[in-house]
Amino acid sequence: MVTEPGPTLTVIGHVESPLTDPALAPKQGREGGAPEAWLVFRDSVRDALGDLRAGDEILVLTWLDRADRSTLRVHPRDDPSRPLTGVFATRSADRPNPIGLHRVRIVAVADGTRVLVRDLEAVHMTPILDVKPVLGADDA
Amino acid sequence: MVTEPGPTLTVIGHVESPLTDPALAPKQGREGGAPEAWLVFRDSVRDALGDLRAGDEILVLTWLDRADRSTLRVHPRDDPSRPLTGVFATRSADRPNPIGLHRVRIVAVADGTRVLVRDLEAVHMTPILDVKPVLGADDA
Repeated sequence: MVTEPGPTLTVIGHVESPLTDPALAPKQGREGGAPEAWLVFRDSVRDALGDLRAGDEILVLTWLDRADRSTLRVHPRDDPSRPLTGVFATRSADRPNPIGLHRVRIVAVADGTRVLVRDLEAVHMTPILDVKPVLGADDA
Repeated sequence: MVTEPGPTLTVIGHVESPLTDPALAPKQGREGGAPEAWLVFRDSVRDALGDLRAGDEILVLTWLDRADRSTLRVHPRDDPSRPLTGVFATRSADRPNPIGLHRVRIVAVADGTRVLVRDLEAVHMTPILDVKPVLGADDA
């Protein structure tokens, strides 16, 4: 594995969710079963959040801090009957940079730094790295 | 701004592109004008790339190393007639964690570590962080 240190991330908030066991979390939010969760941001990024509104669809980038960063091949969806596959052709959390990408809809914004979203498959206390708007043409 | 250090990224490769001036780069690949570019990966992640094929649509995550990480509000698309907007409601590169998200199609894979893609708006030598498959239901 690569060991040379790269850029350092800034944790801008964390997930507050009833999901606590990653093994029980849905593999992708759109499969259903993922609950509503709060995105709780640090006060230092309040100004960056000012234009998020209930109803908006957003991409939430997280840091999957329980992942194994040395894993390069996996059985997709933890199914041993599937052949070992390079992680870049899968959505496994185990990968050199375990950045989670979650497409969710905003239910509510509270206090300027708390954002309630629907169908987030990240577990409780997952660090948040970024939020981006969904662009029709670019993400569709 | 937040200064507490967070997780450290691993740079897994870089972009080789004729685009060298970020000011001239298309703002989003799908607007047209972005060229073909090579994703050149480190040999250490070769095993993770093994199942990428020409024709596949992928998400490439990059580190936009020229971005200003202290910017929290911008005029969208650098248009001063647009009101200042929180960066999390924009695709500005300037944001606390300048992670670029690019949806592109693979044209060719060479030598196991070089991937030619279409319509990548990242400039030459942009560091690469991750590659994920596009999922129909989740990214559409």
